[in-house]
Amino acid sequence: MKKFVYLHGGDIRGAAEKSGRNVAEILDFSANINPLGMPPGVREAVIESLDSSLNYPDPFCRRLRAAISEKLNQPEDYILCGNGGADLIYRLVYALRPGRALVTAPAFAEYEEAMCQTGTWIEFFPLGKTLEITEAYVDKLSQEHDIVFLCNPNNPTGILTPRSLIKKLLDKARALDVRVCLDECFLDFVKKEEDYSAAGWLSEYPNLIILKSFTKMYAIPGLRLGYVLSADTDLLNRMRLAGQPWSVSEPAQAAGIAALRAEGFREQTIDLVDRERAFLKEKLEELGLCVCDGHANYLCFQAAGDATLADRMQGEGILLRRCANYRGLGPDYYRTAVRGHDENQKLLATLKKVL
Amino acid sequence: MKKFVYLHGGDIRGAAEKSGRNVAEILDFSANINPLGMPPGVREAVIESLDSSLNYPDPFCRRLRAAISEKLNQPEDYILCGNGGADLIYRLVYALRPGRALVTAPAFAEYEEAMCQTGTWIEFFPLGKTLEITEAYVDKLSQEHDIVFLCNPNNPTGILTPRSLIKKLLDKARALDVRVCLDECFLDFVKKEEDYSAAGWLSEYPNLIILKSFTKMYAIPGLRLGYVLSADTDLLNRMRLAGQPWSVSEPAQAAGIAALRAEGFREQTIDLVDRERAFLKEKLEELGLCVCDGHANYLCFQAAGDATLADRMQGEGILLRRCANYRGLGPDYYRTAVRGHDENQKLLATLKKVL
Repeated sequence: MKKFVYLHGGDIRGAAEKSGRNVAEILDFSANINPLGMPPGVREAVIESLDSSLNYPDPFCRRLRAAISEKLNQPEDYILCGNGGADLIYRLVYALRPGRALVTAPAFAEYEEAMCQTGTWIEFFPLGKTLEITEAYVDKLSQEHDIVFLCNPNNPTGILTPRSLIKKLLDKARALDVRVCLDECFLDFVKKEEDYSAAGWLSEYPNLIILKSFTKMYAIPGLRLGYVLSADTDLLNRMRLAGQPWSVSEPAQAAGIAALRAEGFREQTIDLVDRERAFLKEKLEELGLCVCDGHANYLCFQAAGDATLADRMQGEGILLRRCANYRGLGPDYYRTAVRGHDENQKLLATLKKVL
Repeated sequence: MKKFVYLHGGDIRGAAEKSGRNVAEILDFSANINPLGMPPGVREAVIESLDSSLNYPDPFCRRLRAAISEKLNQPEDYILCGNGGADLIYRLVYALRPGRALVTAPAFAEYEEAMCQTGTWIEFFPLGKTLEITEAYVDKLSQEHDIVFLCNPNNPTGILTPRSLIKKLLDKARALDVRVCLDECFLDFVKKEEDYSAAGWLSEYPNLIILKSFTKMYAIPGLRLGYVLSADTDLLNRMRLAGQPWSVSEPAQAAGIAALRAEGFREQTIDLVDRERAFLKEKLEELGLCVCDGHANYLCFQAAGDATLADRMQGEGILLRRCANYRGLGPDYYRTAVRGHDENQKLLATLKKVL
């Protein structure tokens, strides 16, 4: 039987146990969280939510959905909230039970993990040497597929797919009656988000499901909050039925509402991440690493032939994300978060030491 | 297509919207939460957990499982935590995809809701006029079943099933290779829990899965925390794979650990609930209502022929749990939580007014 093996980033407690270090002593570059931390107001909102945590959380997330609706200018009916983005991937897959899916290699591993549960036949499309998504991906789509996944920017590469290509994929998928799951969880970190997001096309493409997360931009992975957008309200209803009614906790709902109110926080974050990403990329390349053209709050790089880099870094108390379990990437690929300047410098100094 | 219709208790926000009242003005007897509120230390633990909520929650709930293990004197391997008990019901059902199930009528509605998703053929066993689970339920079990559900004490009736009968069910089920899901979520409220719980038999019966919740005793339904106990660690592994790895939030894990540390809280709760339940039962009977012999922190009663009682009570700002959607109960059955003395008196006074 398949064992549960944890291969994602962010298992800071496991790393602490293994290395005999304190959680606080470990610098985690394996999960991609906003270096600014939570926006102002979130902490207070969670504390306030403790009084209402004596009640079951609102199963419909009414106030949170209203806040998202207002922020995105999308109908409340198009929004379904979940216990983090990953919860919604499983709900989508359970609701659809797709027979056959098309997924890029590499892509976020949870699509595959979830579809293992439904016995879906997954066709992996290797992105090739450039790791870019091109028209060849659209060409590959056929009526045999029930769903196609696209992550923009890609996880783990951070590479953006142009909106024109997304539109081609949507057009072809709609004509072939194929669903498109577009994972825009990290698009929050892209300055001209509107030049890349497909959110404006929801009504035109009822086959489109956009996945969004609060975790990364608002630095609340521990609270668990994500949502999907789709004009197919029947599908959202089926996703609701595919799991328990109270999946989004009261603190998570409160945190989401407060996070959306934090004016200027996203812009401030993007300024910092843009600057630090450019700095980190340049310095990683100076160390002889081959770095992808990432646009999120992380960078993916190849340390040619070096499959033990993450182990040596962990020995120094720094966690990198090993990319060996991403399909299409070799054992010498790694992903690092873009953090604050001091921490990024520590990362670079330690890399220099162990390389 | 089946619409998502919310029929559980605790939708205080929905009730507030409907009645134009403030959430704080509504007295919710439709969800069964400890009238003492959260135990000391839980609030502080959640606030402290906000710092670590910048990281992903521990996917293995290592510290929480260690705390449960110590409290219950069960191996850590036997414990799987979830985003509330309901999350674990869905995981169990997705992991097993049972072809045929045996369920009492009435029983907690989520068993059926979850098995709707797996196309399970559910045989409902009507409990008859006494609403007690008897040997007839054991007799009904056959090798055609893949799983049998038993809720002890029953939800919504609160009636206890003797341990000797549970043992008979376990023996027969083990011989027939049928799984037993024993929902002991409300057994925390029973004084001599050990006289009723099957937890001591886990190693003997690898077909046994016990469902437990933190929600009710520790008054944290808004935080979402539950767990299952089973000696079948392969099954627990499959349940882990049946959903996302990070289902239990950081605040929920912290709250659980703190709740287990609160010495004497459970005993204090049971004293209060026992006293108030006896008071409430007597007074409800004086009002001419037919009350079940409940042993949890709720009471189920029949208001013969009166199918609109909950509507009239809601008009007065008091929520009762309508039991019409419980199989085997008529539209004149209701469930009320046992709360603090003042609130219980308000309930009684309002009932007197509207009856």
